[in-house]
Amino acid sequence: MSDPFFHPVSGFDLPRFAGVPTFMRLPHVGPEHPRFAEVDVGIVGVPWDSGTTNRPGPRHGPRQLRDASTMIRAQHQVTGQRPFETVNCADLGDVGPNPADIKDSMARITAFYDTLVAADIRPLTAGGDHLTSLPVLRALARSGPLGMIHFDSHTDLFHSYFGGTMYTHGTPFRRAVEEGLLDPKRVIQIGIRGTMYDAEDRDFAKAEGIRIVEIEEFFDRGSPDVMQEARDIVGDAPTYVSYDIDFVDPTFAPGTGTPEVGGPNSYEALRVCRGLAGVNIVGADLVEVSPPFDQAGATAFLGVSIMFELLCSMLAQPA
Amino acid sequence: MSDPFFHPVSGFDLPRFAGVPTFMRLPHVGPEHPRFAEVDVGIVGVPWDSGTTNRPGPRHGPRQLRDASTMIRAQHQVTGQRPFETVNCADLGDVGPNPADIKDSMARITAFYDTLVAADIRPLTAGGDHLTSLPVLRALARSGPLGMIHFDSHTDLFHSYFGGTMYTHGTPFRRAVEEGLLDPKRVIQIGIRGTMYDAEDRDFAKAEGIRIVEIEEFFDRGSPDVMQEARDIVGDAPTYVSYDIDFVDPTFAPGTGTPEVGGPNSYEALRVCRGLAGVNIVGADLVEVSPPFDQAGATAFLGVSIMFELLCSMLAQPA
Amino acid sequence: MSDPFFHPVSGFDLPRFAGVPTFMRLPHVGPEHPRFAEVDVGIVGVPWDSGTTNRPGPRHGPRQLRDASTMIRAQHQVTGQRPFETVNCADLGDVGPNPADIKDSMARITAFYDTLVAADIRPLTAGGDHLTSLPVLRALARSGPLGMIHFDSHTDLFHSYFGGTMYTHGTPFRRAVEEGLLDPKRVIQIGIRGTMYDAEDRDFAKAEGIRIVEIEEFFDRGSPDVMQEARDIVGDAPTYVSYDIDFVDPTFAPGTGTPEVGGPNSYEALRVCRGLAGVNIVGADLVEVSPPFDQAGATAFLGVSIMFELLCSMLAQPA
Amino acid sequence: MSDPFFHPVSGFDLPRFAGVPTFMRLPHVGPEHPRFAEVDVGIVGVPWDSGTTNRPGPRHGPRQLRDASTMIRAQHQVTGQRPFETVNCADLGDVGPNPADIKDSMARITAFYDTLVAADIRPLTAGGDHLTSLPVLRALARSGPLGMIHFDSHTDLFHSYFGGTMYTHGTPFRRAVEEGLLDPKRVIQIGIRGTMYDAEDRDFAKAEGIRIVEIEEFFDRGSPDVMQEARDIVGDAPTYVSYDIDFVDPTFAPGTGTPEVGGPNSYEALRVCRGLAGVNIVGADLVEVSPPFDQAGATAFLGVSIMFELLCSMLAQPA
Amino acid sequence: MSDPFFHPVSGFDLPRFAGVPTFMRLPHVGPEHPRFAEVDVGIVGVPWDSGTTNRPGPRHGPRQLRDASTMIRAQHQVTGQRPFETVNCADLGDVGPNPADIKDSMARITAFYDTLVAADIRPLTAGGDHLTSLPVLRALARSGPLGMIHFDSHTDLFHSYFGGTMYTHGTPFRRAVEEGLLDPKRVIQIGIRGTMYDAEDRDFAKAEGIRIVEIEEFFDRGSPDVMQEARDIVGDAPTYVSYDIDFVDPTFAPGTGTPEVGGPNSYEALRVCRGLAGVNIVGADLVEVSPPFDQAGATAFLGVSIMFELLCSMLAQPA
Amino acid sequence: MSDPFFHPVSGFDLPRFAGVPTFMRLPHVGPEHPRFAEVDVGIVGVPWDSGTTNRPGPRHGPRQLRDASTMIRAQHQVTGQRPFETVNCADLGDVGPNPADIKDSMARITAFYDTLVAADIRPLTAGGDHLTSLPVLRALARSGPLGMIHFDSHTDLFHSYFGGTMYTHGTPFRRAVEEGLLDPKRVIQIGIRGTMYDAEDRDFAKAEGIRIVEIEEFFDRGSPDVMQEARDIVGDAPTYVSYDIDFVDPTFAPGTGTPEVGGPNSYEALRVCRGLAGVNIVGADLVEVSPPFDQAGATAFLGVSIMFELLCSMLAQPA
Repeated sequence: MSDPFFHPVSGFDLPRFAGVPTFMRLPHVGPEHPRFAEVDVGIVGVPWDSGTTNRPGPRHGPRQLRDASTMIRAQHQVTGQRPFETVNCADLGDVGPNPADIKDSMARITAFYDTLVAADIRPLTAGGDHLTSLPVLRALARSGPLGMIHFDSHTDLFHSYFGGTMYTHGTPFRRAVEEGLLDPKRVIQIGIRGTMYDAEDRDFAKAEGIRIVEIEEFFDRGSPDVMQEARDIVGDAPTYVSYDIDFVDPTFAPGTGTPEVGGPNSYEALRVCRGLAGVNIVGADLVEVSPPFDQAGATAFLGVSIMFELLCSMLAQPA
Repeated sequence: MSDPFFHPVSGFDLPRFAGVPTFMRLPHVGPEHPRFAEVDVGIVGVPWDSGTTNRPGPRHGPRQLRDASTMIRAQHQVTGQRPFETVNCADLGDVGPNPADIKDSMARITAFYDTLVAADIRPLTAGGDHLTSLPVLRALARSGPLGMIHFDSHTDLFHSYFGGTMYTHGTPFRRAVEEGLLDPKRVIQIGIRGTMYDAEDRDFAKAEGIRIVEIEEFFDRGSPDVMQEARDIVGDAPTYVSYDIDFVDPTFAPGTGTPEVGGPNSYEALRVCRGLAGVNIVGADLVEVSPPFDQAGATAFLGVSIMFELLCSMLAQPA
Repeated sequence: MSDPFFHPVSGFDLPRFAGVPTFMRLPHVGPEHPRFAEVDVGIVGVPWDSGTTNRPGPRHGPRQLRDASTMIRAQHQVTGQRPFETVNCADLGDVGPNPADIKDSMARITAFYDTLVAADIRPLTAGGDHLTSLPVLRALARSGPLGMIHFDSHTDLFHSYFGGTMYTHGTPFRRAVEEGLLDPKRVIQIGIRGTMYDAEDRDFAKAEGIRIVEIEEFFDRGSPDVMQEARDIVGDAPTYVSYDIDFVDPTFAPGTGTPEVGGPNSYEALRVCRGLAGVNIVGADLVEVSPPFDQAGATAFLGVSIMFELLCSMLAQPA
Repeated sequence: MSDPFFHPVSGFDLPRFAGVPTFMRLPHVGPEHPRFAEVDVGIVGVPWDSGTTNRPGPRHGPRQLRDASTMIRAQHQVTGQRPFETVNCADLGDVGPNPADIKDSMARITAFYDTLVAADIRPLTAGGDHLTSLPVLRALARSGPLGMIHFDSHTDLFHSYFGGTMYTHGTPFRRAVEEGLLDPKRVIQIGIRGTMYDAEDRDFAKAEGIRIVEIEEFFDRGSPDVMQEARDIVGDAPTYVSYDIDFVDPTFAPGTGTPEVGGPNSYEALRVCRGLAGVNIVGADLVEVSPPFDQAGATAFLGVSIMFELLCSMLAQPA
Repeated sequence: MSDPFFHPVSGFDLPRFAGVPTFMRLPHVGPEHPRFAEVDVGIVGVPWDSGTTNRPGPRHGPRQLRDASTMIRAQHQVTGQRPFETVNCADLGDVGPNPADIKDSMARITAFYDTLVAADIRPLTAGGDHLTSLPVLRALARSGPLGMIHFDSHTDLFHSYFGGTMYTHGTPFRRAVEEGLLDPKRVIQIGIRGTMYDAEDRDFAKAEGIRIVEIEEFFDRGSPDVMQEARDIVGDAPTYVSYDIDFVDPTFAPGTGTPEVGGPNSYEALRVCRGLAGVNIVGADLVEVSPPFDQAGATAFLGVSIMFELLCSMLAQPA
Repeated sequence: MSDPFFHPVSGFDLPRFAGVPTFMRLPHVGPEHPRFAEVDVGIVGVPWDSGTTNRPGPRHGPRQLRDASTMIRAQHQVTGQRPFETVNCADLGDVGPNPADIKDSMARITAFYDTLVAADIRPLTAGGDHLTSLPVLRALARSGPLGMIHFDSHTDLFHSYFGGTMYTHGTPFRRAVEEGLLDPKRVIQIGIRGTMYDAEDRDFAKAEGIRIVEIEEFFDRGSPDVMQEARDIVGDAPTYVSYDIDFVDPTFAPGTGTPEVGGPNSYEALRVCRGLAGVNIVGADLVEVSPPFDQAGATAFLGVSIMFELLCSMLAQPA
């Protein structure tokens, strides 16, 4: 049972458009706050897009996600979970990046997550572009390589861009495997699609044992069957969940930098999260929400709906 | 056979972007018009959103729905119905609300619909927020409680908001049951979803015998099966149809105040209406279209497509 | 000299798109906060638009103004003032309105401002529609009627709307004069324009001695001359400043409910505030920012630029 | 004094967002209406853009102008005129064009205006692209060539486009002079600017005696001085007023097909109309409002504000 | 194997937002270019919408499609095809229409495509409204009537509009059958839906033997089964493919002039193209992309994704 | 007299919405093109925003500026200049940046401009954020420090950001002075405004002798007087012109990352360029156009109008 200090304000008491917008109307409890140590699950913004090779904007993601998140209520419709009453949840604020220095930013991010690990806080991250996952994993995987369930339209397994640039949003999981942060045998990537430069990333996946479920297979088999396989692949060991909003069809999530048409709809976007129940999740992220390309804010609302699903999955009992 | 006075102008004669925009290009026949008494089905705008607890805007709904409705043609693609040639249809104009006084507005609305009932005109209403249905039902249910088929993502069955406020767009059907306007045993709500404050509304529904079909059940069973159950529940007795545009997934209908992701697509949005054929419909409404949140006008066009389907359902022969 | 606790975060340290968005990146210090009593100037949001007779939306104003306000830096370009280092400024949060009950909302607002008066905190309010000023004045004028400098395209001096509705955003200052909250001889309204229903409001102003500067006179005489007259009219006694964003031409401030073309540009919008230096300001507001009609957010950024000017004027030395 | 049948509904009685949108909330009185012959000034829509060589869309102008026009009230702020109480004004509906046949459309338009001339109704036209003025002039100039005061950023005096195409929105006044509909010595064009193909149009103007006031001269001399010259040029004889919305700077009027930056602001846009008082106006138009390029609808509201000014000018007493 | 001159620039070398935007980053090789004769498949823009009876804008289609096409990469995800390395592809530029003369424009278009036929270049056309297909077919069918697989929500088989206008975007295939350009027995139309004026087009189709698959049948049978029938109908003989973007549901493709709700999603939009493999395609088009109604550009990106699929289908081996 | 190969296509021959969009419809002549050496003035895109500390997007600037530039015609309205017939102008394409490596990008840019200097081509640059000017100046100032006339709302003279980051869009001219690329005594900055972090940049300017004209002085003195001073300051020696679009008021140029309200309108935006006539301009740039924040594209059209003015200024005869 959580402490009432960590309960969000209800929309029945304060209209949902009112108040300083924190994630899901939770208290803002930064590392300097006296009750920081009591937090169980911390929601963190990483407003950063220096790894973006195409259309920019995810640096504005956490701000807009906070705004949209005031629409989230207290109870999960299907499972009946009331996560904010289960454990102490809080908005931990943003990690301040350096927009003009990639390596400095990565160091700042890893340092922040090291603090969370030290305080035994599980992070739910709002990116930021997908390079964000790399410095987060550097902190979370200090005890050994993690498994990963990865929703995306891209593998993000490329070697480099533009003649040797190693750190972009297209390369984080190549680096994570090379650095021993992920156990490739316990990694599954779901929803992959779109025109391809070439098959270099698929070749790497095949060589390392990463399982790729392309969108055609996803639609043919259906979400429950694919998620069963995902749970089997990661097993009981510690696992990271990385959810790129471009997994979803861009009509449902237009606010992203590298959209690929032909993806899942919003119902499927939520349903895959429900298939995570029972996984041993040490951290999760939602990345690549880019408000400048989301004129009506719809992507952010879908994004926080996914974040609420991820939060509930993190708190679900083992299967 | 309808009187040619009540036929809409064809887009083959006058381009669809031309002319004063009335609903479906029908003649504007207000209560003071000499041919008012000849109307069989009247389309009414209720530009009102004083019951809105979240994002406002449905006061602008009827205006934008009229604009989009000039795209509607004369014949139903599947059934072949030509409703405007079947009975006398007309645009009855708007009920003028008082934007700064909820109770005065409700009195004005009920008075207007009392006039329609007296003239034996069946109303098809373009809201307005969902509180609109309450004053309409007060007029239509004067001969006894009605059944209702209700498409929505919310039950709108809450007791009150903000410490005791009884009239909001989240409470109309709670009030309608309490006031004896609806027979709860003949009410079905379809498409319910989204994060929940708590289960107070579900508890009320269960206690009163209202049938709730959540979105997961809707998708699992499919529209035809659910609509068969809906027809069984309401039977042959007089029935109201209330269609909240937020039943539809917000990607297809972004212009609404309290969207919930993970809903039906536009094809399903139309198809459920076709499942109404044979129901004894005494009135219908489409509510919660909010143009300020619908930058491209897509919601209004879907909305009037639904209104055309509702109109055809109102004129379909009993099964 | 202010306490460093009350200093905003610099954009040189944390990028301006990062962090939980409070007004001008000040600390969030609600009435329950331990340091509330130390606040000198408090910025308050009133997310409320129940008095709106036309296009709605100002309920979303404070949220968007907070977002845009993270673009504001520490120093005034012309005067060199550094207001956050002069006195203790803070974001006091929002007054929670009841969107479905006007009188309850007014009571809540007055109660909140009574608390500020008791704590000797001068308020700078972010509305909300213009009816907001009335419950604020009820708290601020407890010691006697105030003078007022009012920037607007409308007089907001009408008697009533829709057959006797007394509380709308077109009537607040009629009520305030009637209730003895304003001394009409010390009231000046600047920028009035637009087509008129009739001259009822002008007749009231003339009878009471309220000075109206229509836009043609404003442009003919120029801002400095008009503002000199404004200062002369209010004199040294306590004065309220009310700034309706629709004072500005709607091209510069599209996000508002009742725009009137032919108004001042953004430079003039700022310059009039500079003419307030030396006035004995007991409170100020910026109202009628309506995000749903401000697709690109430009109105909010202009709005917070005006708020910063108002803040500097509140802290300027007497002439 | 006008007949009350022709009075618009007041926003104090029916909110301005309510009701079927006719021009300025006037009654819709088409040629077939029993009271058509009583109309003095008729507002006509011509939803047509077949003459457009660049970005299309003015076919949607009348619809959006009607919508925005419900914001117009009854009295002119400066002159105090109450035009709807002075003469019988009405919305005459739209002339139905043939979007795929330019010459057929021109014939339909001229035929419609011949009807107005026969009924002694002075037209105020809402276009449509600028080619609209040509078929209108063909009806209005049957008694002899007219003078013209023309606000625009382009002269529309070109000979032809695309290798000999004679009827486009860049050629109407070349044709009108050639056909003897305009007396070039009594024509003045105000606000001309933008990069030029060549000087062919200027050469034609010079040869015929048409007066061109380029934007630099307009700003240097000021509106009152230029309008005095305009009145002198047209004198007391019958005069047409043609107002292309692209006269105004595109920031204030983005919804148009061929914008030219560096133009007048909205205040100047209105003020030039006031300089028309005393001119013998036989008809006026506002053209080139293109809603697809006016996402926020601002152009339409400025457009109808100009139309209200033009209407008042048409009813002003001779100087 | 194609010549490297005809290879597009890779996004790994030049970021995809950089460079002069040609179709799919191919070289711009107009008819006057020295290597024109080496082209195998030419992508052509036809920026023209003079046949549009409703909302305009497709004249802006090719420009926006070129912009979005720089997001397309080199390899097909499912088939592995690398079309640009298979044959010589190029951007042939736009056919310049005459926006104010329909017949002149049709002559210009046919003349351009005659040049392609003479040079043995297969065209992939980016429209333009659907009337574009008619002058293209006049060139491509010089050797005899073609078969056609046609994706659309409308049949475009009407006799005429507005009292006898024969050339509009609603009539091209009626004309094409009349002119002997299409063999109606080898024509299939897929996805037809929406309210109907009447059944005149269906009657014509039935009389001539054209196969219409309405959307209900499409969804009931599924794409693979329908496409098998399509391949059977056209057989091995030369076939044209015409893809109207309004085949797709307007939520996925809002930028079009005559949307019809209830259509296929983006995944199905791509999948039907894959069903074209093995067809003897002599030319293909994608038409009715209207940027003014596509504020976020999503339609164009879906459009070029479809064009890439069409291109791959044109190069697939016979079944 | 220029070679006809370098003449743009006229909108009288090919509609302005047609064709592959190059800058001002000039031929695309990259460094590898056989006629590269004949170019006199080259327009270059630098799609790059890695120096941006706030809202991103200028990487998309050149693409959108090319699109809008097809609206530019051949002749200057005031001066009568026909620049494309005076010297050989061409679109030189884009310099390909490395979005994830600032220093690599700067090296690529300088290398490209070195090529231009070697070929005696004067560059007119379309940015990109303002850091772009630094690597350009490194090439152009190889023969000695340049003077500079700089239009902006910010000085861009800061020492560093985020604890020591030296290369951002707020520091280029600090670096340029330190590197000896600019002679600070021959630098003038015009239009400076907005809230300030502190006065560090002003202190640097004062110490080095850079002249700052704040916006208040600009409006008080007027454009002609300020531009006379600018010409006096730079004298006859080689001078660079740098034009940040945020010099213009954000209502006229919303598409930029760090807007400051209260700036010049579009007429003044053009007029200052005309005051450059007679200056010895070795290169010019227009920077900080950010399409993601310019939903309607208005900024780009103003931007290319400024670029045309800059081009004419570059070709004007010495005073």
